[in-house]
Amino acid sequence: MTEQKPGPCSIIKSFDIIGSKWRLVVLNDLQGSEKRFNELKRSTEASSRTLSRVLKELVSEGLVEKRVEKESPIATYYSLTQKGRELFPVFEEVDNWAEKWLET
Amino acid sequence: MTEQKPGPCSIIKSFDIIGSKWRLVVLNDLQGSEKRFNELKRSTEASSRTLSRVLKELVSEGLVEKRVEKESPIATYYSLTQKGRELFPVFEEVDNWAEKWLET
Repeated sequence: MTEQKPGPCSIIKSFDIIGSKWRLVVLNDLQGSEKRFNELKRSTEASSRTLSRVLKELVSEGLVEKRVEKESPIATYYSLTQKGRELFPVFEEVDNWAEKWLET
Repeated sequence: MTEQKPGPCSIIKSFDIIGSKWRLVVLNDLQGSEKRFNELKRSTEASSRTLSRVLKELVSEGLVEKRVEKESPIATYYSLTQKGRELFPVFEEVDNWAEKWLET
């Protein structure tokens, strides 16, 4: 019997990593360019506590990188790794679906 | 300023609906055909309690339909609505990503 769709194993593994609303929101928000913590806070509308936790999780999963700028203005920047950037087609498809099915 | 990627609003709305591991697992699992509760339980490896809750949520979001077969063998079947089926490209892209980035 051939299986057309992905088996539950790889899908469950993927959704352990990206199957949470705030992780998805942050990953989507970083698709454009690197951002500072406060920029992300503003654009995602996540609380500081949630955003800190989610960024830490995404860094530990290898999807996001943290860069500390020591020159003035001192700041911490977050950006996607290659593994995170390659989720872009997933977001494009979610957006296509949302445009058709959700009232905005 | 033009924004290339979807704004946080439509994305946050989408992820309120599909941004949970078990919802995604069940939606993916129903992409092929309708299934009975026990088939879904076996293929997703979700607990009965989780699966019941998730199916109820997905029915209420209009992504899944429930059909009760009253002739023998009496059974309850779950299948995707059009809105649920059209998430297929999202799962394809997740699978492409998983194949490249996750060891299975």
